[in-house]
Amino acid sequence: VEPDVRRELEARVGSAHVLHGDTTEGPATDWTGRYRGRTPAIVRPGTVDEVAAVLAVCDAAGVPVVPQGGNTGLVGGGVPLAGEVVLSLRRLERLGPVDQVTRQVTAGSGVTLSRLQAHAAEQGLRYAVDLAARETATVGGTVATNAGGSRFLRFGGTREQLRGIEAVLADGRVVRHLGGLEKDNTGYHLPSLLCGSEGTLAVVTAARLALVPEPTHHVTALLGCPGVAAALEVGVSLRERLPELEAAELFLDEGLRLVVDRLALDDPFPDRWPAYLLVECADDRDPTERLAAAIEATSVGDVAVGVAAGRREALWRYREGHTEAMNLLGIPHKLDVTLPLGQLAAFAEEVVRRVRDLDADAHCWLFGHVLDGNLHVNVTGLTPGDNRVDEAVLTLVADHGGSISAEHGIGTAKKAWLHLSRSPVELDVFRAVKRALDPRGILNPNVLLP
Amino acid sequence: VEPDVRRELEARVGSAHVLHGDTTEGPATDWTGRYRGRTPAIVRPGTVDEVAAVLAVCDAAGVPVVPQGGNTGLVGGGVPLAGEVVLSLRRLERLGPVDQVTRQVTAGSGVTLSRLQAHAAEQGLRYAVDLAARETATVGGTVATNAGGSRFLRFGGTREQLRGIEAVLADGRVVRHLGGLEKDNTGYHLPSLLCGSEGTLAVVTAARLALVPEPTHHVTALLGCPGVAAALEVGVSLRERLPELEAAELFLDEGLRLVVDRLALDDPFPDRWPAYLLVECADDRDPTERLAAAIEATSVGDVAVGVAAGRREALWRYREGHTEAMNLLGIPHKLDVTLPLGQLAAFAEEVVRRVRDLDADAHCWLFGHVLDGNLHVNVTGLTPGDNRVDEAVLTLVADHGGSISAEHGIGTAKKAWLHLSRSPVELDVFRAVKRALDPRGILNPNVLLP
Repeated sequence: VEPDVRRELEARVGSAHVLHGDTTEGPATDWTGRYRGRTPAIVRPGTVDEVAAVLAVCDAAGVPVVPQGGNTGLVGGGVPLAGEVVLSLRRLERLGPVDQVTRQVTAGSGVTLSRLQAHAAEQGLRYAVDLAARETATVGGTVATNAGGSRFLRFGGTREQLRGIEAVLADGRVVRHLGGLEKDNTGYHLPSLLCGSEGTLAVVTAARLALVPEPTHHVTALLGCPGVAAALEVGVSLRERLPELEAAELFLDEGLRLVVDRLALDDPFPDRWPAYLLVECADDRDPTERLAAAIEATSVGDVAVGVAAGRREALWRYREGHTEAMNLLGIPHKLDVTLPLGQLAAFAEEVVRRVRDLDADAHCWLFGHVLDGNLHVNVTGLTPGDNRVDEAVLTLVADHGGSISAEHGIGTAKKAWLHLSRSPVELDVFRAVKRALDPRGILNPNVLLP
Repeated sequence: VEPDVRRELEARVGSAHVLHGDTTEGPATDWTGRYRGRTPAIVRPGTVDEVAAVLAVCDAAGVPVVPQGGNTGLVGGGVPLAGEVVLSLRRLERLGPVDQVTRQVTAGSGVTLSRLQAHAAEQGLRYAVDLAARETATVGGTVATNAGGSRFLRFGGTREQLRGIEAVLADGRVVRHLGGLEKDNTGYHLPSLLCGSEGTLAVVTAARLALVPEPTHHVTALLGCPGVAAALEVGVSLRERLPELEAAELFLDEGLRLVVDRLALDDPFPDRWPAYLLVECADDRDPTERLAAAIEATSVGDVAVGVAAGRREALWRYREGHTEAMNLLGIPHKLDVTLPLGQLAAFAEEVVRRVRDLDADAHCWLFGHVLDGNLHVNVTGLTPGDNRVDEAVLTLVADHGGSISAEHGIGTAKKAWLHLSRSPVELDVFRAVKRALDPRGILNPNVLLP
């Protein structure tokens, strides 16, 4: 950026908060290491007014900006791949009191999910959205990407938790609607529009979020299943009988081997199973017996049940350890997709074959939130810049009637394939909305829209 | 409209479906009779392609259009008050099969809520949104207005049920995304944007809707309470203990008197109470005892419980009969508002006084979905065109931090007061989005935006 723009930015947020960003590390590189950018400046405003001032400067100067939260995104949507200024929202850490009657809280964009969870827990509540990156992922980032996570099945994603939003428009004007009224049919629903817009329409600075009760009883079970189709069938059957079911995570034997080996864990079962389903129920009435009865009605092979917190965490570790274990193999291609439930098992079989056919060094790992139709297709053994596998997998997803992004968004990683999930008319509508809210095109101009 | 436009419309949908609309009755007048318009033509397309063709004709000719579903709206948003063409969506009655695995169904905009409910019930499911106008209100109308209803407390409103949408843009292009994938982060969420946009951004022609299980047990209870604040306190306490609580409806003794007298019902209790709370629980485990225990923990005066369908309906009749009974008094001013829960009781007292002070002939009736903060303020005794009461009540709502529309929308009735709930920046954003999607301004141009 021009020296006068830098001086203006420093005047707005203090020179200590405009960092030399001429580096390919830290905020300029994504968490997986696949997307490495460069930035002329990392700007760290401390208040919504400072965010507004920064955007007004950038808009007037035509300087493109990438908003960034915890930088845990997986589609290269929060890093400056085209030399954008990084607008870090991490200092917006204000966390308001929990309103016990409405079960709501207002959180600044820089608040991490784990801090939000701890804050809610003090009042016997919890935030419905939970995911493995909770220590680093922020409220702002999860709103901008409509993060899903492991409890989507019961509570929906981030969009469903939003009761209000505060955001700054490209030109620096502030939109604020944080009253948290449950019913409020007074115009277009901006929280829903901004949620999942990946920083392209406005910069989210705070959110009014719904909380849900923290049930007194939790029970987790790991089920050995004869295959993906069987695991899905078991999941559907459990959901049918158990409204208190809040997670149903799938992984395969190969993934479990990797996790057990690399993270030095004990095997969950003496026998091996082609597929595993990790389920969790939570309720104020102990759901253990109901869960056991529901499992008994299915064709599950092996069952390991956890009720105590330590045992439950140990079972979850088999699932959440996948990301960590896989990263030890190199930089993975992370392809997060949704399939129609009826297509999921066939897709799971075919995608492994396709990836193997593509490159003998490539290896496909599958896991995900199976009742949402959501598979995380991770491919290791290829260089970060090799897009053949993205092309092959996403095309296969579209052939099966799926979505090329379930919960990670489009970012820069998938925008070349957005046409597989969206019609030309839809893309036209997206572009028209983008132009309406960001006429100079400074907000994350290189993500989402092809 | 010009004769050549009429001929073109007749060519697109058949002359039998372009009706002479030069009348102030039927589709040109709203259900309450408060809003009486005139229209040059009522056009009734039978397919989405015909809707597209009609809009292309109107857009090219610059002819404004009011989309209309069951015409049960209460804010004058679906009637041609400025001589618009009425685009009736009632013939879009296609109703797809219920998918048992995903619990979803695709419904055309003309499908009534009661038909949708019956269709879901055949598969042991139900549509979460339910409201008194179910026999006439349509899927399209409820999507366009983000209808709430009596089960909002448990399931949210129409927006929360949407898994996909089909709509026609002003220029006749069709946006269709009905695959119903639960997780689909591929761009801006158009279903949420169109839901509640009151026909100003696009014409909804079909929706992919989530269904919820129909529990085996339902129990309804009517509770006599010493006042509004006490009723609210009881409601909050019940919700705290009963996740299976799905309705909490408030009404006052005066309203009950009116309903009992006009609809010739029996009194529910030998004693009279200042306020009544009607609650309903539904679960697969009989909730009667849990409900009784939860009620016992509160300060409720009288309790009437219904488990059999007939008895439950009889209890609901006291609440749902309010609209019918009130209409016998003349054309009411219907002001549907939300208050923060902490302000609701104070508002309920003050609004009655304000209305009485305004005009000795005016009478204020209060009822609503109390745990959502949603009060329906009905005022009788004034002429339909007398807006003093709207001004007084909506200003009072804003003074208490509430929303001028909870679930009915803005329409033409409240657009002069939208500034009470929305900032100038928000209104600018709304206008920018409107221009982006409907550049010629033909879609319901006289509603919502001041």
